[in-house]
Amino acid sequence: VRTGNGYDVHQLEAGDGVTLCGVFIPHDQKLKGHSDADVALHALTDALLATCGAGDIGDHFPPSDPQWRGAASRIFLEHAARIVREHGGTIMNADVSLIAEAPKVGPHRQAMRAKLSDYLGIDIERCSVKATTNETIGFVGRREGIAAIATATVVYRGGKR
Amino acid sequence: VRTGNGYDVHQLEAGDGVTLCGVFIPHDQKLKGHSDADVALHALTDALLATCGAGDIGDHFPPSDPQWRGAASRIFLEHAARIVREHGGTIMNADVSLIAEAPKVGPHRQAMRAKLSDYLGIDIERCSVKATTNETIGFVGRREGIAAIATATVVYRGGKR
Amino acid sequence: VRTGNGYDVHQLEAGDGVTLCGVFIPHDQKLKGHSDADVALHALTDALLATCGAGDIGDHFPPSDPQWRGAASRIFLEHAARIVREHGGTIMNADVSLIAEAPKVGPHRQAMRAKLSDYLGIDIERCSVKATTNETIGFVGRREGIAAIATATVVYRGGKR
Ligand SMILES: [Mg+2]
Ligand SMILES: [Mg+2]
Ligand SMILES: [Mg+2]
Repeated sequence: VRTGNGYDVHQLEAGDGVTLCGVFIPHDQKLKGHSDADVALHALTDALLATCGAGDIGDHFPPSDPQWRGAASRIFLEHAARIVREHGGTIMNADVSLIAEAPKVGPHRQAMRAKLSDYLGIDIERCSVKATTNETIGFVGRREGIAAIATATVVYRGGKR
Repeated sequence: VRTGNGYDVHQLEAGDGVTLCGVFIPHDQKLKGHSDADVALHALTDALLATCGAGDIGDHFPPSDPQWRGAASRIFLEHAARIVREHGGTIMNADVSLIAEAPKVGPHRQAMRAKLSDYLGIDIERCSVKATTNETIGFVGRREGIAAIATATVVYRGGKR
Repeated sequence: VRTGNGYDVHQLEAGDGVTLCGVFIPHDQKLKGHSDADVALHALTDALLATCGAGDIGDHFPPSDPQWRGAASRIFLEHAARIVREHGGTIMNADVSLIAEAPKVGPHRQAMRAKLSDYLGIDIERCSVKATTNETIGFVGRREGIAAIATATVVYRGGKR
């Protein structure tokens, strides 16, 4: 069994909504980034890649590559899940903490978990999405950006691996 | 086996001490919050809930609900541990990193671990409390708040779950 | 099975390079600290110690102790790995996320993973190093410091421990 972590941040700017865990939430700001800037899926992509030492999201999908402009981040996450399976891994669970002053994530939690379940091909019970504010302090507290911390646990074939 | 993460922050203001991992430490600041603002227990509560996709602490204990004003955060942690057990889970270990410029956590580490062991009903060897400063930079470094990062590992009944 | 987390930060100042995961990278800044200030190895040291409740790096190697001035941080990591083994643990994997605006970590990833494999005595496939920027915001974004988040998974002898 192996566990990986992931961390990502994207800046906020004036806009009409944010995409988090594959769910669009109307909001008075949007996330900046070369893709859809879904910090939750980016952090989780890194956490999965980590379990087999397969580099990070920037390695597989360079921000400088124009083909990922505006891309749906599910592409990145599904790619990472495929790499895990090719290494003989079975995803035990996936967990994301969103750190954002706004918008409220709670009303969208179930939709987000359903997306993760779909993208990863695992039971929704094994998919977790949580959220907290940064209590108005730091870059998250000043609404300059949204951060995400992800954890993924994967069992690899063979002995107690 | 599944692993969950948790992250929490509370602001510091002038006061007479902070409660961290259930232990009161005299200090020239206190943590703001609707409950006792124990960031360590809040982060760990989220990490446990994550292992069975049971939402987050704000979901179970809305800050807007007056009944949790000044509450001891052990209530939140024990509630999460109960949910884990109801889902067939056995807690393997619980780990918290406190990020705080002050006060010093080291002298209170054993007392904090004993509290976690008591609240979670697991051996103290499986309970870990660590601390680091933020080297005087960022919101933690400016003593505007204290942050905590938690990890919990839980084995659920049934096959390699 | 138990999972531990680790977090560390060191300030950046004018200099000629940084040591991350045991690899020196030429850069126009350096990391401040009592040892070589390798934030990645410090965070991972904490993550390993956490799996057996053995305190934190500051506990084992007080910054106030002059003998660790300028020390290579592999000493700290190897010490933690030894404690894990003495407790009957086998390290399943080690993962680090570096949060730094610069320098680029990608070109050094394989060298860093090889160092971790050497220090920990585990297969390189079980060693993961990832990196992300903080998108120019916060203390990392302002190049005031570099942060690291680590995760370690360890299986301890005996039943489903
Ligand atoms: Mg990103
Ligand atoms: Mg809280
Ligand atoms: Mg350090």
